[in-house]
Amino acid sequence: MRIDIISCQPDLLESPFSHSILKRAQQKGLVEIHVHDLRKYAINKYGQIDDYAFGGGAGMVMMIEPIDKCISELQADRTYDAIIYMTPDGQTLNQNTVNQFSLLQNILILCGHYKGVDERVRQRFVTHEISIGDYVLSGGELGAAVLTDAIIRILPGVLNDESSALTDSFQDGLLAPPVFTRPADYKGMKVPDILLSGDGPKIEQWRFEQAIERTRQRRPDLLNE
Amino acid sequence: MRIDIISCQPDLLESPFSHSILKRAQQKGLVEIHVHDLRKYAINKYGQIDDYAFGGGAGMVMMIEPIDKCISELQADRTYDAIIYMTPDGQTLNQNTVNQFSLLQNILILCGHYKGVDERVRQRFVTHEISIGDYVLSGGELGAAVLTDAIIRILPGVLNDESSALTDSFQDGLLAPPVFTRPADYKGMKVPDILLSGDGPKIEQWRFEQAIERTRQRRPDLLNE
Repeated sequence: MRIDIISCQPDLLESPFSHSILKRAQQKGLVEIHVHDLRKYAINKYGQIDDYAFGGGAGMVMMIEPIDKCISELQADRTYDAIIYMTPDGQTLNQNTVNQFSLLQNILILCGHYKGVDERVRQRFVTHEISIGDYVLSGGELGAAVLTDAIIRILPGVLNDESSALTDSFQDGLLAPPVFTRPADYKGMKVPDILLSGDGPKIEQWRFEQAIERTRQRRPDLLNE
Repeated sequence: MRIDIISCQPDLLESPFSHSILKRAQQKGLVEIHVHDLRKYAINKYGQIDDYAFGGGAGMVMMIEPIDKCISELQADRTYDAIIYMTPDGQTLNQNTVNQFSLLQNILILCGHYKGVDERVRQRFVTHEISIGDYVLSGGELGAAVLTDAIIRILPGVLNDESSALTDSFQDGLLAPPVFTRPADYKGMKVPDILLSGDGPKIEQWRFEQAIERTRQRRPDLLNE
């Protein structure tokens, strides 16, 4: 898989992609991530990529021309299965969408900033508009990092133990059950006896019941889907 | 405002906090962000902070003792208004919760990793469990960065033009209307005439109608709340 990210603040994306699972996935050759600095495609020598909104109002708008030039250059080399714009008014990301994206070969992610991109960018280039949640961030970079992380961690070969991802929250439509580790007694707070019993089937049954109960209490909406 | 973040992968958080709005907010003295490396509170000289889950199964669990030591040290110096654990089975973050957190003085954010923290950490220390969305990430660090960014950008004095944040998606329960900037005609794609009319009241009316229409098409759930 190859993921290209277009950003006017590429520095923001340095550390999330150079550590931990995302670093290992790239080292193993499972994914290539390329971050492109939109300012290289600016309309003038001052590096301009944004301008005031037509009609007035606070906040700058990212211009179509630099984005057009950048996307066109990338498309000259390969076809993208998805051109994703990160925006709070996009489709809300969930694990099912992540799973679908993880099956693609080439993904292009466009990060908005300021008041967002000129609407014509969305009309002409973008195939998917994605929001990571109902809140506003200072830019699309963190959203792009979230989306990239969620996709990459489920690619085959990325996690050392792939069965771990299968028991995550949402993969089976349930929240994960509580987990405990040593010590069994910490300042009087004890681990449930069942988990120390060594009785595998009973432990699985307990975990399933806990997952159901936790989902019922916290996210009953997931049970009704 | 002061935000402390506890993480076993503090390097992941370097770049999001050292650029752009978050950097400026810290330079202006509007917020202090301190990232604490959980490995400094490890239970042994090998830096151990996690162990296998009681009851078996894939994935490591973060131990209570290092977290207890780290939180206790921080609490010795100040009182926290919120101790937030980033977890996919937490309460789903939205702009209203962000607004509430932005009014607090001291916030402590705990990042999970692997299969999460020992349940007793949640029972004993955590006051709020927050999920940034219905998907699983490789750790809580990106979630903490998202939460921090969302909070800080709405603190008074952070944005150059504060009225910009008031017209964001979600702040008024609606998605934002489309925005356009120069040129008015790009390869035949034209900006709506109304935005070039100079008629302020009519433009505001158009934007309001567009916001309603966009919300109705994309997120009718927001209109019913």
